[in-house]
Amino acid sequence: MKIADIIEKKPWIAWILFGGTLGAVLIVGLLGASIMERRQETQVMMKVKEGVSEWDSRNHVWGAQYPREYETFLETSKTDFTSKYQGSATRDLLQEQPKLAVMWAGYPFSRDYKQARGHFYAVKDIRETLRTTAPLPGTCWACKSPDVPRVMHEMGTAEMYKTKWPELGSQIVNSIGCLDCHDPNTMNLRISRPALAEAWQRQGKDISKASLREMRSLVCAQCHVEYFFKGKEEKYLTFPWDKGYSVEAMEAYYDEMKFYDWVHPMSRAPMLKAQHPDYEVFMTGIHAERGVSCADCHMPYRGEGGVKFTDHHIQSPLNNISNSCAICHRETEETLRKNVYDRQNKVAELLRLSEDAVTAAHIEAKAAWDAGATESDMATILVLIRHAQWRWDWVAASNGVGFHSPAESLRVLGTSIQKAQEARRLLLGVLHAHGAKPPVMPDLSTKEKAQAYVGLDIAKLKQQKKEFLENTVPKWDKAAAEREAKMK
Amino acid sequence: MKIADIIEKKPWIAWILFGGTLGAVLIVGLLGASIMERRQETQVMMKVKEGVSEWDSRNHVWGAQYPREYETFLETSKTDFTSKYQGSATRDLLQEQPKLAVMWAGYPFSRDYKQARGHFYAVKDIRETLRTTAPLPGTCWACKSPDVPRVMHEMGTAEMYKTKWPELGSQIVNSIGCLDCHDPNTMNLRISRPALAEAWQRQGKDISKASLREMRSLVCAQCHVEYFFKGKEEKYLTFPWDKGYSVEAMEAYYDEMKFYDWVHPMSRAPMLKAQHPDYEVFMTGIHAERGVSCADCHMPYRGEGGVKFTDHHIQSPLNNISNSCAICHRETEETLRKNVYDRQNKVAELLRLSEDAVTAAHIEAKAAWDAGATESDMATILVLIRHAQWRWDWVAASNGVGFHSPAESLRVLGTSIQKAQEARRLLLGVLHAHGAKPPVMPDLSTKEKAQAYVGLDIAKLKQQKKEFLENTVPKWDKAAAEREAKMK
Repeated sequence: MKIADIIEKKPWIAWILFGGTLGAVLIVGLLGASIMERRQETQVMMKVKEGVSEWDSRNHVWGAQYPREYETFLETSKTDFTSKYQGSATRDLLQEQPKLAVMWAGYPFSRDYKQARGHFYAVKDIRETLRTTAPLPGTCWACKSPDVPRVMHEMGTAEMYKTKWPELGSQIVNSIGCLDCHDPNTMNLRISRPALAEAWQRQGKDISKASLREMRSLVCAQCHVEYFFKGKEEKYLTFPWDKGYSVEAMEAYYDEMKFYDWVHPMSRAPMLKAQHPDYEVFMTGIHAERGVSCADCHMPYRGEGGVKFTDHHIQSPLNNISNSCAICHRETEETLRKNVYDRQNKVAELLRLSEDAVTAAHIEAKAAWDAGATESDMATILVLIRHAQWRWDWVAASNGVGFHSPAESLRVLGTSIQKAQEARRLLLGVLHAHGAKPPVMPDLSTKEKAQAYVGLDIAKLKQQKKEFLENTVPKWDKAAAEREAKMK
Repeated sequence: MKIADIIEKKPWIAWILFGGTLGAVLIVGLLGASIMERRQETQVMMKVKEGVSEWDSRNHVWGAQYPREYETFLETSKTDFTSKYQGSATRDLLQEQPKLAVMWAGYPFSRDYKQARGHFYAVKDIRETLRTTAPLPGTCWACKSPDVPRVMHEMGTAEMYKTKWPELGSQIVNSIGCLDCHDPNTMNLRISRPALAEAWQRQGKDISKASLREMRSLVCAQCHVEYFFKGKEEKYLTFPWDKGYSVEAMEAYYDEMKFYDWVHPMSRAPMLKAQHPDYEVFMTGIHAERGVSCADCHMPYRGEGGVKFTDHHIQSPLNNISNSCAICHRETEETLRKNVYDRQNKVAELLRLSEDAVTAAHIEAKAAWDAGATESDMATILVLIRHAQWRWDWVAASNGVGFHSPAESLRVLGTSIQKAQEARRLLLGVLHAHGAKPPVMPDLSTKEKAQAYVGLDIAKLKQQKKEFLENTVPKWDKAAAEREAKMK
């Protein structure tokens, strides 16, 4: 029997086939229309409606064109971190680890050291910290504001660095934002600070050739790196990367040029203050090894209607596990959070051991000098203290409590502990040789006691700061407002 | 127009549909037949053709029924590891790190310590090592052979442990194999050694309730764990897990019962020798956290024709990345190997720092005793040395150079370094208090120098071993062959 005969006998079979096909075509058509609509929406959103002028550092001007990015950027004002190690904006790290005041004696960090807050607060916080009661160069503004590229353009980078910090107060008022990372004409990621580009150039690399994937980390690496101020007058912002950016390579770089950030008033060791070598630590870890960029975790993509955009609420991925970690990792939020804390707990344990040893070494070194130790007695010891604290700080000053590279952080802390303890052992020998006993350790149980021990007059500094905030800052803001009002 | 009419006009359309359907049915049929054939092949292979008798420890008897498992088991005789840290069977670890001879002075490990070889060599190697020139209890056989469960069955476990090691030489001749992990009736995984089951019981857990996934690690954990010989006469094999199996929990367990493996003849510290706490280290790492078992990486599945079977060539996954790591990890073999080495390099760096400090501490402690130090002078110091070496050994004695849990290994080594360096610092104080100078460090650049330094007469031990291998061992083998010939 021919198939035609079957259909002849049961024509409803043919109608079912016909109707089914019509239905399927209709559904595909609707899906197609929806996709096209979403695409169009995306294109409308992504299009630069009007150009932003070349050096416009006002984030809200950019925000008018990019409301989603701007709105999420404004969320960096929210700092209720869920990570126990990040805590809230009010966390006082000197209060939690008072020994840090001894480790940084003679250096502004001993005055004030708080948990970093969101980018939204960058200008507010540098104005308010007691660290800026010290005389500082313009270089200290370098990472705080999109006004910086504008000022560098207007007065020249080298000139900006060596200008005194307060003289630039009315120029630098907008907090870290759009112009720091974006080209105002194309919205492409762009390096706005010369120090990173210069560091690449000295390594024989051209940063303009960096891939988009690299740029999604490199715009962060403009600031989230180790750097120093080169030249007594020039204070030229420089990355110590010429030998590589491992902790040992940077240490060797500093040693070779005999650089020090300050001389510790107790141990007399020529010290290094690590800044926040987030990028360098990250680059030694498995996420970097697997091609993950900073933005992948700290600025994951978000979908809103048909628009996929980058979440500009830069924050700990622990606040946003489902959009960050969970893109690759299939575990529960609870498991992933535990995995992070497990690593951070281990790093924190060795951080504390290192702090105990380095702090004691400074105190014992002072006792050795007091007992008549000679430069020659102390030479090896001071290098050990310098290196031990640098290696501790390489981990301690980085965000993430070692999570960006747990194994490397723990290795480095292991060497820090070894060096600090070795310094203490040798110090005991020097003390004995000069007929002195090891010093009785002071009470460093609170920040106040530790700061008093290193001779800080915090009340006086707070008074200075109060006057500055009441008298100087309003003038800065007024001048800035007048200047910005003239901008079109 | 009716569809029937179309087919009426173009009947070839119907033939194409008909022919296509026939072809598809044929292909599905063939696939089905192939699947059935493969299933049947698997069932034939998996079926126990004849039962293996309850206590048959001869691997080749089992092998006649399970040729694939047996053939791959025989491959454990191949020990050309690719890992630089595992190296070949001829790697002499005392030659590589001569300081270990000082750390283990007075303990058999100072005589001989080589890279562990495949299970195939377990009996051969325990006979040949210089460590077994010392008087040892039967307990030392416990992990070496499937003859052990048989002997335990025949003479009782407690009795076997306290029998002298040489008295069991003719009983224990088959190398680690089938009966160690399998039930001879069902081939299911089975715990054959009481120590693990007893440890679970003391923790209030019933090991017979363990899941298959757990069993795929637990059969390994019968031996690849930390254990000690409890009781001066009893020498009862015991796992120190009653407080947990972190390094600190086991340390606290040993401390509480004042257990020591031996008293170090130089420092006089009551020492702990870590065995190979592979399971405990592994359980702190991410692979365990994610539910991976030992067998998943060290005995991955293999396909041969229709048969999927477990590769019994237990070895480093680095020799077999495509079948082990690559099942989950999508990176290249080269990348994965590099990732392992990167972690092992960091662990090795801290291992060396710890060894340097602990070795020096033993030597300086001896100098302190020689200078007239009192028990009270030394109490804290000896605890520091004991804990520092235990923590070092927890990592050093484990297979995998810390890879099973890099962050935990590095944390533990950080604390080891801190304790050993602290011991050295306090020792300097004791030496000064007794008017003595720190000792000049001996030349420990080779194994021979280090062994001579701790007073070992290796030539004599080698002669003893030669005589033992020439005279005693052939008698053991002859008696065993006669005994086994009587088995059906």
